[in-house]
Amino acid sequence: MHSKGKPLAPEIELDTLAAGTPGFTGADLANLVNEAALLTARRGLKQIGQAELEEGIMRVIAGPEKRTRLFSEQERKVTAYHEMGHALVGHFLQRTEDIHKISIISRGQALGYTISLPREDRYLTTRTELMEELGMTLGGRAAEEIVFNEVTTGAANDLERVTQLAKQMVMRFGMSEKLGPRVLGRSHDQPFMGREYGAEPDYSDEMAREIDDEIRRVIEEAHVTAQKVLREHLEDLNRMANLLIGRETIDREQFERLLAGESEERVFADAAVPPGGGDGKKPRKSRAKPKPYPLPGTEGAKS
Amino acid sequence: MHSKGKPLAPEIELDTLAAGTPGFTGADLANLVNEAALLTARRGLKQIGQAELEEGIMRVIAGPEKRTRLFSEQERKVTAYHEMGHALVGHFLQRTEDIHKISIISRGQALGYTISLPREDRYLTTRTELMEELGMTLGGRAAEEIVFNEVTTGAANDLERVTQLAKQMVMRFGMSEKLGPRVLGRSHDQPFMGREYGAEPDYSDEMAREIDDEIRRVIEEAHVTAQKVLREHLEDLNRMANLLIGRETIDREQFERLLAGESEERVFADAAVPPGGGDGKKPRKSRAKPKPYPLPGTEGAKS
Amino acid sequence: MHSKGKPLAPEIELDTLAAGTPGFTGADLANLVNEAALLTARRGLKQIGQAELEEGIMRVIAGPEKRTRLFSEQERKVTAYHEMGHALVGHFLQRTEDIHKISIISRGQALGYTISLPREDRYLTTRTELMEELGMTLGGRAAEEIVFNEVTTGAANDLERVTQLAKQMVMRFGMSEKLGPRVLGRSHDQPFMGREYGAEPDYSDEMAREIDDEIRRVIEEAHVTAQKVLREHLEDLNRMANLLIGRETIDREQFERLLAGESEERVFADAAVPPGGGDGKKPRKSRAKPKPYPLPGTEGAKS
Amino acid sequence: MHSKGKPLAPEIELDTLAAGTPGFTGADLANLVNEAALLTARRGLKQIGQAELEEGIMRVIAGPEKRTRLFSEQERKVTAYHEMGHALVGHFLQRTEDIHKISIISRGQALGYTISLPREDRYLTTRTELMEELGMTLGGRAAEEIVFNEVTTGAANDLERVTQLAKQMVMRFGMSEKLGPRVLGRSHDQPFMGREYGAEPDYSDEMAREIDDEIRRVIEEAHVTAQKVLREHLEDLNRMANLLIGRETIDREQFERLLAGESEERVFADAAVPPGGGDGKKPRKSRAKPKPYPLPGTEGAKS
Amino acid sequence: MHSKGKPLAPEIELDTLAAGTPGFTGADLANLVNEAALLTARRGLKQIGQAELEEGIMRVIAGPEKRTRLFSEQERKVTAYHEMGHALVGHFLQRTEDIHKISIISRGQALGYTISLPREDRYLTTRTELMEELGMTLGGRAAEEIVFNEVTTGAANDLERVTQLAKQMVMRFGMSEKLGPRVLGRSHDQPFMGREYGAEPDYSDEMAREIDDEIRRVIEEAHVTAQKVLREHLEDLNRMANLLIGRETIDREQFERLLAGESEERVFADAAVPPGGGDGKKPRKSRAKPKPYPLPGTEGAKS
Amino acid sequence: MHSKGKPLAPEIELDTLAAGTPGFTGADLANLVNEAALLTARRGLKQIGQAELEEGIMRVIAGPEKRTRLFSEQERKVTAYHEMGHALVGHFLQRTEDIHKISIISRGQALGYTISLPREDRYLTTRTELMEELGMTLGGRAAEEIVFNEVTTGAANDLERVTQLAKQMVMRFGMSEKLGPRVLGRSHDQPFMGREYGAEPDYSDEMAREIDDEIRRVIEEAHVTAQKVLREHLEDLNRMANLLIGRETIDREQFERLLAGESEERVFADAAVPPGGGDGKKPRKSRAKPKPYPLPGTEGAKS
Repeated sequence: MHSKGKPLAPEIELDTLAAGTPGFTGADLANLVNEAALLTARRGLKQIGQAELEEGIMRVIAGPEKRTRLFSEQERKVTAYHEMGHALVGHFLQRTEDIHKISIISRGQALGYTISLPREDRYLTTRTELMEELGMTLGGRAAEEIVFNEVTTGAANDLERVTQLAKQMVMRFGMSEKLGPRVLGRSHDQPFMGREYGAEPDYSDEMAREIDDEIRRVIEEAHVTAQKVLREHLEDLNRMANLLIGRETIDREQFERLLAGESEERVFADAAVPPGGGDGKKPRKSRAKPKPYPLPGTEGAKS
Repeated sequence: MHSKGKPLAPEIELDTLAAGTPGFTGADLANLVNEAALLTARRGLKQIGQAELEEGIMRVIAGPEKRTRLFSEQERKVTAYHEMGHALVGHFLQRTEDIHKISIISRGQALGYTISLPREDRYLTTRTELMEELGMTLGGRAAEEIVFNEVTTGAANDLERVTQLAKQMVMRFGMSEKLGPRVLGRSHDQPFMGREYGAEPDYSDEMAREIDDEIRRVIEEAHVTAQKVLREHLEDLNRMANLLIGRETIDREQFERLLAGESEERVFADAAVPPGGGDGKKPRKSRAKPKPYPLPGTEGAKS
Repeated sequence: MHSKGKPLAPEIELDTLAAGTPGFTGADLANLVNEAALLTARRGLKQIGQAELEEGIMRVIAGPEKRTRLFSEQERKVTAYHEMGHALVGHFLQRTEDIHKISIISRGQALGYTISLPREDRYLTTRTELMEELGMTLGGRAAEEIVFNEVTTGAANDLERVTQLAKQMVMRFGMSEKLGPRVLGRSHDQPFMGREYGAEPDYSDEMAREIDDEIRRVIEEAHVTAQKVLREHLEDLNRMANLLIGRETIDREQFERLLAGESEERVFADAAVPPGGGDGKKPRKSRAKPKPYPLPGTEGAKS
Repeated sequence: MHSKGKPLAPEIELDTLAAGTPGFTGADLANLVNEAALLTARRGLKQIGQAELEEGIMRVIAGPEKRTRLFSEQERKVTAYHEMGHALVGHFLQRTEDIHKISIISRGQALGYTISLPREDRYLTTRTELMEELGMTLGGRAAEEIVFNEVTTGAANDLERVTQLAKQMVMRFGMSEKLGPRVLGRSHDQPFMGREYGAEPDYSDEMAREIDDEIRRVIEEAHVTAQKVLREHLEDLNRMANLLIGRETIDREQFERLLAGESEERVFADAAVPPGGGDGKKPRKSRAKPKPYPLPGTEGAKS
Repeated sequence: MHSKGKPLAPEIELDTLAAGTPGFTGADLANLVNEAALLTARRGLKQIGQAELEEGIMRVIAGPEKRTRLFSEQERKVTAYHEMGHALVGHFLQRTEDIHKISIISRGQALGYTISLPREDRYLTTRTELMEELGMTLGGRAAEEIVFNEVTTGAANDLERVTQLAKQMVMRFGMSEKLGPRVLGRSHDQPFMGREYGAEPDYSDEMAREIDDEIRRVIEEAHVTAQKVLREHLEDLNRMANLLIGRETIDREQFERLLAGESEERVFADAAVPPGGGDGKKPRKSRAKPKPYPLPGTEGAKS
Repeated sequence: MHSKGKPLAPEIELDTLAAGTPGFTGADLANLVNEAALLTARRGLKQIGQAELEEGIMRVIAGPEKRTRLFSEQERKVTAYHEMGHALVGHFLQRTEDIHKISIISRGQALGYTISLPREDRYLTTRTELMEELGMTLGGRAAEEIVFNEVTTGAANDLERVTQLAKQMVMRFGMSEKLGPRVLGRSHDQPFMGREYGAEPDYSDEMAREIDDEIRRVIEEAHVTAQKVLREHLEDLNRMANLLIGRETIDREQFERLLAGESEERVFADAAVPPGGGDGKKPRKSRAKPKPYPLPGTEGAKS
């Protein structure tokens, strides 16, 4: 543990830490502890505590908070609906991940963020799960469309991830029944070039047209799903987005209790309890959405 | 502050300066103060005043004035109508920016310029606002078409900005309902190559045709809007363009009072009052149009 | 023999070793013996035995075992059906190779593996044999489709091999009657570039379309065959996949006896007998599937 | 002034010199004076006179005279009709430029040349003026077609300029109503690569076809215009081309007087009078046609 | 002669040697003599004899024998039919070359080889001769199809040569009546790049389609011819292929006598007679098939 | 004159030499004199004579004679008809060039050659003359078709020149009425890359198709013309080709006298007279066909 001379508080369990950061490389973990140690020093504490570690994780995942940015009321509102759109579609669709944290505090390049977490390490992903992932990623844009009848530039990163994932489903994982069990396009592993999978076409323009159709069909299907979910839960969307505007950040437990109808006062009265502390449970593993979408094949390749 | 040995006049407020130059990098600000200090020295003054800072800002945005160029009467007239076309379309359409300055004094490569300013810092831009931006940018060309029934080579830069912005709306921000919530084309961030977003196609020629159609539709819509606005305000266009030919430069307050019908004499009688001085108000933030169009996604990305 | 100071056990026959590793280069063999010597040292043995050599072969072919990975029940189940899909299609179709080992113990990037072996060294491959090879490679995906009515990301490597092999049949070996006895696309032998055969098209887009159709037809034919075989042997698939979940690894003899209906208890009661030992027969040559598909032309070129 | 030790004759006015060479860079001017100084030395004169400066200008624009080339009668005749074709179309169409000099004395790579001059510096060019420019450039080829019913290789440079200009009108200046107010194709400013504007397509092949149609339409329109002008003035073309064959070079005043019907004898009787001297007028500004066509956008960009 | 200290046997005639190796470069000849000298040393002989030179030639042409490879009965059978297919089509079609040697002893990458020889040096090749060359090259594949009703990977090199030759006929030698007397595609002579003729297309996709059609037509015609010849001589094919399986190598004289119906015993009783020795005739010039197809234009260019 | 210490014979006129070598660069001339000086030395002469200079010219144009090559009777016959095909089409079509020499003695890469010469230096070339040039270049292939009803590989260089010239007519010289007065494709002057004119397309695939059609039409027209001329003069072709087989080389005067019907004996009785000597006339200027086709635009550009 590179902890810069700062010991970990005795109540910290290293197992919990590792379990809470699936997908982290060794460098990520070192980075995390450094960030936590710096925070500890800045706060004049002697031991790295749970709060410092949590913030360290957030910084590695999404960058430091940018509290100096001043957003307009309208921007805060759009952002809150956008993030809650992700969270609600994810909550109602996603069978294998939980909503871990929702926030409209700007971090890095993002105006807000929603973090979901797998319930366990995954090595195989099904077509259904990838469709749900697409739906959740399009949930932010869908919320903007439904509530404001207008779209903004803010969804650009979501759209990139949706496009890349839909392409992989069609071109790498053989998940288009029409095109059959094959790959399309040549991949390049040269780290220097850094080109994405299927970057170089190896098919006719007619086949390219069919691929385009399939990608469009996949995205359209997920888009319709996201809109359907949010329309069915429009009351929740309005209520929860307004709560998010007020509270700025909502964690997993709060999210679930608020959604279940518990009163805001009661839910946040418990907020003083440290995360994962109140009921003695360990925090669940969190996988941050803002990280580049992992190529499932490297998790679950099999022959 | 790199002010080359010249102190700032005591009445200058640094906050005002920073507020008046949104989007300026540190290097831009250093440049600005250098320009102002040079002017101060050339004018034999001991302190950098408000006038020198204002001119410094203009130089950083649009280059130095080119008063030695001799334009024909016709060129001055075309330029005045062109700039007033930008200003009027911007004024009547633009919900979030004000017209800051209109001029037919040549600066850098430009024969004239119109500067508009956002009322506050923006992190998200809506599709509607981008359509208004397109309309304003096409306002110069539209004025030429309506008044002279002829087009000139002078709109080349406007057309580049219109094309690039329309492409981003369709290919990066998912603002074409027909093509759906996705990105189109691969972007490249390699600073050495400096290629624009979506430079490399990753779709079939059939899809390329649909993209072309959508880009053309977006531009056509904005063009029709710009022409409609100017036809409805043709009297204003004639009156204001002629005032601009006579006065060469019109600032925000003058523009609004003249447009409201106040007499030329009265408006310009106040012109001796230093900019932003007369009513004790600070100058509003100005964002220069001639700067390359910022990628909205870097301002307002959100996940 | 580079055996790192460890002598081979006297009962090891070098001929047997070489015969059991067809396609191994000199470097592969050196690697194999090194791995076996390391294992021998780690196990505190004085002589490299048959077991160490067998494990050495597996490490060279498929990488070291990854027992620390924790798979979910569902992932183990999907993997078992996937591998047994390969094995059964291979068994019922393949005329020239035997199933050597089936395992759901993760090695390298793979969650499981199936190894088949040619009955003798091959220098020529017929179109029929390549179609069977395609069918066996698609057997894993076909099993997932039939049993779970769902596909996963786990077949990505299989799909790459299927696509590359189907391309070679059509573009390099003249095995499409429609396109005739010719090659299509230029190959590149430059080792630095490392591009695959037929990487650069040298034909019209119309021809590219016909090539796409032929490749799709070849893959579709193999896919239908694989599904047909598994549907006809669905009972075997269910029974054998469940056995594999329990036993984790099944070797050639066990596979054949279990498939023939012998009881699990009896088959595995013999498992203490060392591989290839019980009946005094030498192990058959094994060719590992996970190795990149060899270009048949370099084995069997002829003029 | 780099005049190689040769003083300028006292009657030379530097203003006149600069005014007569619009578009000349500093290097061009230095070159001009060097050429004039060399001529002065070769002619054994002590001062650089008007004649030497005029010849210096011609050398910088079109290269040195090539009097050693021996042309056939037919080649001289074709060249005379070609140059007079340029001059007459330019004269009857061109509203903003005058014919400055017409010659069939070979210079550099050219067999003859026609120089026209703008009446004042221009920063904006209208679509109409560009169409006239196209017409004048096609006038040489049109004269060959009409008179000899045959075309030659001699128009290659004209055709390059016509094509490049028509492309810019359609692709850079938004002068095709059909394609709308936008740019087409990416430009490159990298000086090392030196690629022309719009070198890299960024549109579908369907759009490429529409661009081709528009370029062809623009060129066809100008071609028809040039032929129409020459057919209407066929008598002038025959008379003036024959005069040019005899006299080899005709200047602006001679051209206008001959065209107006004055007798050859009377017009050339005055030819002893030095250029621009006879009536005390300064020579008009001349812009040489043979220079590469300037990108209007760099002269008249405006925003 | 680089003969590594080994003298040539006195009966060797250098003229014969040179005559027997048309197309050999100086380096090829040096290589040949070195190989022969090595063999001579290995065989403990003092002089390089005819046998050593013959083997030297074979090594330069086709690589060393690979007797350690163990082929299956089926592979030997397929190879024998394949080589005899080349030989018989060549024999019955080829007007200007003789069959020099047929063998199923593996050399280099090849499982077997057939060598034909021109009866004299050639500088011009007719379309008819090139069609015959195509037919002979496809003879191996055709024999597999007819006899085994199956194709193998073994014809890959033949298919490459067929494709390249058909392309040259259509694209370089103007031998497609439909496309006319012209070349198609740009050639590159840069030795570093080593690209083949016509590597870079310089035509529309429509033209590319026509070129594809013509190439396909040429190959199809030769394929049909090869099949027709072998079907008409199926008895010979069966008889001769079986003789080749038994004898492994058949030379020109044996081939012709066996084909003429002489008994196997009698033909091979003479085999002790050294090649080209029995009847005092010199061996005819042999041109090896396995060498890359020479560009006829460099042999027979003419203007 | 670089004459390697060998003086020119006094009867040599340098003017004649220069006049006889139009298109030669300084380096070509130096090369010529060196070759002549070497020959003079080899022949033991003291002065460079007319014969040595003539041979020097041929070596520079077409390379040294290759008398060691042994051609078959059929090859000599095909070559004679091919060269006479060039000569007769050239003679009956070409209005501006004479046939200078016809030979079936191999030089450089060529099996034979025909040299034609312009009657004077040319700076402009008409479309009609280029069509005649195409016809003459296709005359060799046309003769093969008519006489042998078969084509050979020997015309490859002719076809390259035909293709390149037809492309220039359509793409550079605006000689296709359908495509209009414009250039097509970007040219590259970079000497290092050495790419031909119009190497890079700048048009749609539809336009590419039209260009292909026009190129094909131009070549077809010339091909038909060449065949027509030879069919009309088939008797001459047979007679003259047979004379060429016997005499190997025929010069301009012999060609014209033989064609006019003078007897072989009488024409060649005069052959002892040195070239250009008998009638005291100077040799006419000769331009060698085998040199790469000059871009007419560099000879006759005009603006």
